[in-house]
Amino acid sequence: MDLLQTHLWMSDLIYRAGDRIKVIMKQDLEIQEKSSFRDLVTNVDKEIEDFFIANIKARFPEHRIMGEESVDHQFSSLEGMVWIIDPIDGTMNFIKQQDNFGIMISLFQNGVGLLGYIYDVMRDKMCFAIKGYGAYVNGMRLPKAGNLGMLDLPIIVADCVMRSDVPQTKALLQKTLAFRSLGSSALAEIAVFEGKVCAYFSYKISPWDISPSVMIAKELGYLTETVDGQPADLLRQNTCIIGTEKAVREIQAIAGELKSQAEGENDNNKGFLL
Amino acid sequence: MDLLQTHLWMSDLIYRAGDRIKVIMKQDLEIQEKSSFRDLVTNVDKEIEDFFIANIKARFPEHRIMGEESVDHQFSSLEGMVWIIDPIDGTMNFIKQQDNFGIMISLFQNGVGLLGYIYDVMRDKMCFAIKGYGAYVNGMRLPKAGNLGMLDLPIIVADCVMRSDVPQTKALLQKTLAFRSLGSSALAEIAVFEGKVCAYFSYKISPWDISPSVMIAKELGYLTETVDGQPADLLRQNTCIIGTEKAVREIQAIAGELKSQAEGENDNNKGFLL
Repeated sequence: MDLLQTHLWMSDLIYRAGDRIKVIMKQDLEIQEKSSFRDLVTNVDKEIEDFFIANIKARFPEHRIMGEESVDHQFSSLEGMVWIIDPIDGTMNFIKQQDNFGIMISLFQNGVGLLGYIYDVMRDKMCFAIKGYGAYVNGMRLPKAGNLGMLDLPIIVADCVMRSDVPQTKALLQKTLAFRSLGSSALAEIAVFEGKVCAYFSYKISPWDISPSVMIAKELGYLTETVDGQPADLLRQNTCIIGTEKAVREIQAIAGELKSQAEGENDNNKGFLL
Repeated sequence: MDLLQTHLWMSDLIYRAGDRIKVIMKQDLEIQEKSSFRDLVTNVDKEIEDFFIANIKARFPEHRIMGEESVDHQFSSLEGMVWIIDPIDGTMNFIKQQDNFGIMISLFQNGVGLLGYIYDVMRDKMCFAIKGYGAYVNGMRLPKAGNLGMLDLPIIVADCVMRSDVPQTKALLQKTLAFRSLGSSALAEIAVFEGKVCAYFSYKISPWDISPSVMIAKELGYLTETVDGQPADLLRQNTCIIGTEKAVREIQAIAGELKSQAEGENDNNKGFLL
């Protein structure tokens, strides 16, 4: 497999998927609840995921595919060539706003990232990385990660973190310059790589919410870690931080400090470490 | 004064100011703290405000001008013709991201809005209203307000509200479909008028953070009220809600319910009604 040829092919597919989304989102959406009224899926998510799966299978029949909307999206290993697909990240925004959502796709070989894409469809902003060739936004190379922390740049915190009633959330807000919340991991992670925020922090990050960023972060020198200091795990949900080394360590320190204060108290005080 | 001629003149000034901001923001910014390390002003805010003031004074020497960065920005009445200017709303985003900020300008005659402009500079998105002629984004007429509430559309909540430790914030988050936070009143208010969120809620909204929206909301049928049900006051800071009637009433109900629960308790429980 030629990496640059595969990149040109996948990049074209993603732009075509974006064009298709812009057309069909004007029609009636079929919306279904998944785990709750805040966790939704539409016919568009499914059509776009099927489009990627069909194209990947036709070109690389031996590759495995982990898709958010597929029945079989629980993998027990990353052995071989694995594509990870989130056809629409930020489905709530997609349904309610027809804006502020992204396509996320990546390719891993035995757990090592080869290609990673995050596409902000409505702003036509493509952030991508190719192993060994750096990371780019719309073809312009992104600079390496600086080392700014929570008092230097705003932080993006997911809706679910803000909604949870744990002391760490309060501590985090007090210690940050400013926080933002966008409703899409895709948009949040692009903001990290553009240097507009120091970190993005969320509970329940699934492999498809972070896999291109694991790849992009590695090319640029950012970290993608769990709140307790492990590398982000692409086989299960994690409480994850994507950001500069300084910001990631600062957030982990807040979690650790409050965790040790809470030893012996009840479990509600350990909410950050889901 | 011909209203449509004045609109064409002011619209041109705002686009020119946006072009100027895009050039000078690439140079070294001079940053000063105002009330805290989270409340900043730059040489660009001042230059852009001076640009508007000089142009307005040259054309309308008798008009009064309330500018965020001017020494004399406390007015005791809105008598006569009054321009209200926020040269850069979202200064923190401007400094840290060179993105996600806006210009806000409006003209009132004896307290009645004639013209209102919110310009998202980096997305080149101009939202404006002309008394009696409706409200527009980039020249396309905006639809009248629907009546969607907190469970129909996301809500935008300001950073300062999330940071405050009052029971209403928790109640609000539990009762919303989803919340967002952008770091700019300008961007939040455009999102309301585009129908992408049901409301924007913030403490300490100054006249220049809301005045064009008072004008735009009136043209479209949205409300701009304080949390205790008064019209937004353009002579002082307010805790304000800009949104559909349904969402504004829902937020006021949460504040009222928790206020009545807190009667007799200590003042910390009344945080929403600053």
